[in-house]
Amino acid sequence: MNISDIARLAGVSPATVSRYLNNGYVSAEKKAIIKKVIDETGYSPLASAQSLRQRRNRVIGVIVPKLSSESISRVVEGISLGLSDSGYHLFLGNTGNDVASELDYLALFQNNFVDGVIFIATEITPRHRRLFNQYTKPLVVVGQLAEGMPSVYHDDEGAAYAVVDHMIAQGSRRIAFLGVKSGDAAAGLGRHEGYRRALLDHGLEPEPTLYQEVEFSIADGYRGALRLLDGGQSFDGLFCATDNIAIGAMNCLHYSKLSVPGDVRVAGVGDSMVSKALLPALTSVHLYYQTSGQEAAQMVMGHLERGQSVNKQLRLGFELCERESTM
Amino acid sequence: MNISDIARLAGVSPATVSRYLNNGYVSAEKKAIIKKVIDETGYSPLASAQSLRQRRNRVIGVIVPKLSSESISRVVEGISLGLSDSGYHLFLGNTGNDVASELDYLALFQNNFVDGVIFIATEITPRHRRLFNQYTKPLVVVGQLAEGMPSVYHDDEGAAYAVVDHMIAQGSRRIAFLGVKSGDAAAGLGRHEGYRRALLDHGLEPEPTLYQEVEFSIADGYRGALRLLDGGQSFDGLFCATDNIAIGAMNCLHYSKLSVPGDVRVAGVGDSMVSKALLPALTSVHLYYQTSGQEAAQMVMGHLERGQSVNKQLRLGFELCERESTM
Repeated sequence: MNISDIARLAGVSPATVSRYLNNGYVSAEKKAIIKKVIDETGYSPLASAQSLRQRRNRVIGVIVPKLSSESISRVVEGISLGLSDSGYHLFLGNTGNDVASELDYLALFQNNFVDGVIFIATEITPRHRRLFNQYTKPLVVVGQLAEGMPSVYHDDEGAAYAVVDHMIAQGSRRIAFLGVKSGDAAAGLGRHEGYRRALLDHGLEPEPTLYQEVEFSIADGYRGALRLLDGGQSFDGLFCATDNIAIGAMNCLHYSKLSVPGDVRVAGVGDSMVSKALLPALTSVHLYYQTSGQEAAQMVMGHLERGQSVNKQLRLGFELCERESTM
Repeated sequence: MNISDIARLAGVSPATVSRYLNNGYVSAEKKAIIKKVIDETGYSPLASAQSLRQRRNRVIGVIVPKLSSESISRVVEGISLGLSDSGYHLFLGNTGNDVASELDYLALFQNNFVDGVIFIATEITPRHRRLFNQYTKPLVVVGQLAEGMPSVYHDDEGAAYAVVDHMIAQGSRRIAFLGVKSGDAAAGLGRHEGYRRALLDHGLEPEPTLYQEVEFSIADGYRGALRLLDGGQSFDGLFCATDNIAIGAMNCLHYSKLSVPGDVRVAGVGDSMVSKALLPALTSVHLYYQTSGQEAAQMVMGHLERGQSVNKQLRLGFELCERESTM
């Protein structure tokens, strides 16, 4: 039972019913007829309007850990492009990297007017998984492989392997690593594992003294490199889990009178806009951030528009960008 | 007349009325009473729900030209912080720098469920102004001074003046300028005017041959600097309308065997995250992007929550960041 049904039964136009329900102008005669039909059918305009809204909102909730990050803003840009192609809009939930706020947004979106949800994840905890398992709206996870859930993610391990393999081929033997927390299965664990595997495949031993855990920032890259140097370790390669970390590290090496790549080859991950404009230009690996957003948008709209409910886990590849910092 | 009024008249709780309206469980007895009250009062749950939603959505529509820009993502981060402090959410419209799409979003938000609108503007055309004049929802413009409209913007002219004044104080006499289109009153016209005024105040003549118009990108900064050099012009200073343009220009100077700051002092605007980590570190001027977003959020919520309908135009200052590139 919807507005058109009421209109048909009352012999008026749907627009008239809509005006009636919204207290707009309707002649007294038509008012009486519509009221009678509504009373007789037990039609509840609010519940019905909600289900109409459900179908017609064309809004996707997007949950992000922050916006002031080039990689995340590229993903959101991709989602935005993917959605607008199909006339969908984007409702943004910015969690400030807070797990509780992520869970709040997931619950909010589940119970509210968005049609589907895209979640840019950094860490997937058991609490996330419990929520995923009960989720009743189309939900796509981006940036992490979420088992059993539609996901779009990057080959972080392969990307890290390729960079470190390249540094070894260029002649580096003692390669230090500035990584991020392993709770982040992609940028943390995955890139660390790629680094380890590349070393081992070349008969090199990953040394705990050559590892420092840092945050995702230029400033922390600087601090991490400083801790390595202060620890008295010598190294001829420095692999960084992100370009920003690498930029800070290169800065620290410069002020410590070490030349890049002469004394230390340096590489990052992400192929940020600035990586190619640095002096020396930074070797990095391109991840398809914008594409991942577009793919996630396609996936969630596939569920909504074409009823594609097959769980898919889409892993996107990478492209090694060899530049001066590892020559 | 709202749900509480109906509840009072029917002698039931508001939650019961809400369940009734949403076809949830209500005893037959209470159902009859509520129905009677609704019939007698002529209460329209849909219209009322809409006005409740109007008050309760706590959603602000935010219109952005793009997301993959550090300055814009900082503004959006600020808006997001400002809104979430008050339990408001952010509905994002990404226009891809397209005026028609901006106007569409302004119209969409005016006619839909958002409570207010924040518009991150790059250019304000007569078509924008016509729409502004008829706008019925609280609307705040960020990044440009929109006459007659609540606006939060930056002292772009003052910022450019300060940088160029500093370059002159450091000894530069022939200062070239890579600027952006003057349709952008802030980053285009304003920064150009600051450059001109600083030169004139020091008895220097702005020379048309030392000006190139470029796009907002590292790559275009490179191209702009190349055009200046190819034009055979000599200059000992290069002021760039943004840090990204300056980064590309420094790159071009480097590959043209010109040293920074030895041969050419270079400066940008925006104090981007990477500016201080460049080699040499880039002189720039800090604009309060994140603060501008927070202020805009406060302004729009002031209208909504406290009925502050005074038009305010808030101009934020700047901070000169003197670094190696102009020493």
